[in-house]
Amino acid sequence: MFKATIDADILKSSIETLSVLVDEARFRISPEGLSVRAVDPANVAMLSFELSSDAFDEFSADDCEIGMDLSKINDIFSVAGRDDKVTMELDEMSQKMSLRLGGLSYTLALLDPSTIRAEPRIPQLELPAEAVLNGKELQRAVKAAEKISDHMLLGVEADVFYMEAEGDTDRVRLEMPKSELIDLKSGDARSLFSLDYLSDIVKPASKSNEITIELGKDFPVKIGFSIANGAGKIGYLLAPRIESD
Amino acid sequence: MFKATIDADILKSSIETLSVLVDEARFRISPEGLSVRAVDPANVAMLSFELSSDAFDEFSADDCEIGMDLSKINDIFSVAGRDDKVTMELDEMSQKMSLRLGGLSYTLALLDPSTIRAEPRIPQLELPAEAVLNGKELQRAVKAAEKISDHMLLGVEADVFYMEAEGDTDRVRLEMPKSELIDLKSGDARSLFSLDYLSDIVKPASKSNEITIELGKDFPVKIGFSIANGAGKIGYLLAPRIESD
Amino acid sequence: MFKATIDADILKSSIETLSVLVDEARFRISPEGLSVRAVDPANVAMLSFELSSDAFDEFSADDCEIGMDLSKINDIFSVAGRDDKVTMELDEMSQKMSLRLGGLSYTLALLDPSTIRAEPRIPQLELPAEAVLNGKELQRAVKAAEKISDHMLLGVEADVFYMEAEGDTDRVRLEMPKSELIDLKSGDARSLFSLDYLSDIVKPASKSNEITIELGKDFPVKIGFSIANGAGKIGYLLAPRIESD
Repeated sequence: MFKATIDADILKSSIETLSVLVDEARFRISPEGLSVRAVDPANVAMLSFELSSDAFDEFSADDCEIGMDLSKINDIFSVAGRDDKVTMELDEMSQKMSLRLGGLSYTLALLDPSTIRAEPRIPQLELPAEAVLNGKELQRAVKAAEKISDHMLLGVEADVFYMEAEGDTDRVRLEMPKSELIDLKSGDARSLFSLDYLSDIVKPASKSNEITIELGKDFPVKIGFSIANGAGKIGYLLAPRIESD
Repeated sequence: MFKATIDADILKSSIETLSVLVDEARFRISPEGLSVRAVDPANVAMLSFELSSDAFDEFSADDCEIGMDLSKINDIFSVAGRDDKVTMELDEMSQKMSLRLGGLSYTLALLDPSTIRAEPRIPQLELPAEAVLNGKELQRAVKAAEKISDHMLLGVEADVFYMEAEGDTDRVRLEMPKSELIDLKSGDARSLFSLDYLSDIVKPASKSNEITIELGKDFPVKIGFSIANGAGKIGYLLAPRIESD
Repeated sequence: MFKATIDADILKSSIETLSVLVDEARFRISPEGLSVRAVDPANVAMLSFELSSDAFDEFSADDCEIGMDLSKINDIFSVAGRDDKVTMELDEMSQKMSLRLGGLSYTLALLDPSTIRAEPRIPQLELPAEAVLNGKELQRAVKAAEKISDHMLLGVEADVFYMEAEGDTDRVRLEMPKSELIDLKSGDARSLFSLDYLSDIVKPASKSNEITIELGKDFPVKIGFSIANGAGKIGYLLAPRIESD
């Protein structure tokens, strides 16, 4: 059983955070809320998503798992107004989900969860450095880097968090000293990442005033932020590329 | 003889209502105003358009008929400001129309009306059901339906007007009870229409706060609304598709 | 030596005026400011650009010449905010330019000026007629003309400045009497120009409230305006096309 009502806006943002990495997702539903864990088809990035029942106006659910085609949900939101409430209701017999918003009612066929790639095991990493900043700053550096390269360095040097990209002849660097960051935990950290993935991840991350970037030396980066006034949490884990010298 | 001045905005809206079905049109000009009757190249939809001389600031005309390439007029309006007045004047000798707006003067060659498809005879249909609603509601249903199908049902059931589309696995439905409509005449009505045509027709119709949809059982739909504070009337007649069960 | 700080907005506008004709430019730098003279690859249009040191917040320079890829600078501005200040500094040893704006620092490789087409000699023409008008008026006429032709006449007849284009069957004309112009010097002037070039030139020119158009009979047109509150001056010289009768 699953029946819930939520701001269309919150559901829309939630789906966006998922669809930057995957087209279809397995949602774990429990009385506490929804969660998704997924890995992109190339095994380069993982995400962990949790939306507590507190984010909903109404929420009643038993434990279950459903598969959804995220592009269908995005299609629905391209028609919906922003302020609408969405009511979702699962019909377990027919394996269909109904969505009602602003007078429109949709009936969507669900996907068999077993046809969707299994949930990844997300490694527990202890990363030595951590910078907390406005998502827009990361987006700005990523957009600048894309103009000259296809990968970008993220690192911490003394009390400065930096993002840097180098093309054949040109270089761009954004330095943020501790005083310009919301918070900084210094540590030995410098890793190279694919801009393909970073530009996807910054799309939802740039809407958050406070994102946390955890880094190590040639280690994956963890980029985390919350949505729905803290009732939703999203974390990305992106594998590093090997830096060729 | 034909010479007239009108708000560029009204002329622009008028041309839009025509160009969703045809590229060239025969305008019948009389001392009472302008009118067009046209059928689309595939014979699926017809339109009847009337713009009374009341819609004009100045209007003097003898009975005549001219042919115009609508895309040329649209090109002109893509340059014109919205507030401008347009003055049109026919030069019968050279078969050219001059248009002056905001300092620019255009001289357009007319088309020989006999090269444009003849005016269709528009059938007089008595349709049992009628719903009056804001054009934006129809547009919303059409946009939602386009995501999952290429045709859409329109119908009336008891005191509810509904629009519904069904894809291979999914379904979307917008129901509007009488209380949410401007007016409803109930009757036995349910017909299926091509979304290709409906999406074109809703473009101008969505700008009207009050459109009238007349329906029957597997019968054409009539979609009518007025422009220029009632001085212009436009009606579309769209043939139904056969519903396969 | 060259080090300077300027509003990003002014530098951006400056680069736009150049990039409508060329992709790479030789900048002459002196203690008085920057200047560029360039001719487009087809030898149809020339430009002369001067930006006085007064346009800068800080400016210190020795005489030198540098070559820059304008698209790289445009890329940088597509990321920068509009209000930012830009600081440029030349590293003569490595032939690189550093640009810092809003926390981002770019290091761009310069081009060897000798690989960029030599500065053209810009002919001193005494043109008999001159119209001063808002750049938006020229843009409006150019956009209207583009719909029906690939060239446009500019001319002066008695106290009227006119722009006219003629297609196979249609014609558009914008007349501006002296009373609608900022200024007019009447003279025998009527020349035909390529709309390809005019549409590029009007992009930056349309942002100026006051552009000066100097004309003769089958002679080049000079289109001039200023930027940065008069501290920058840009002039285009466009060769006429032969009018076939």
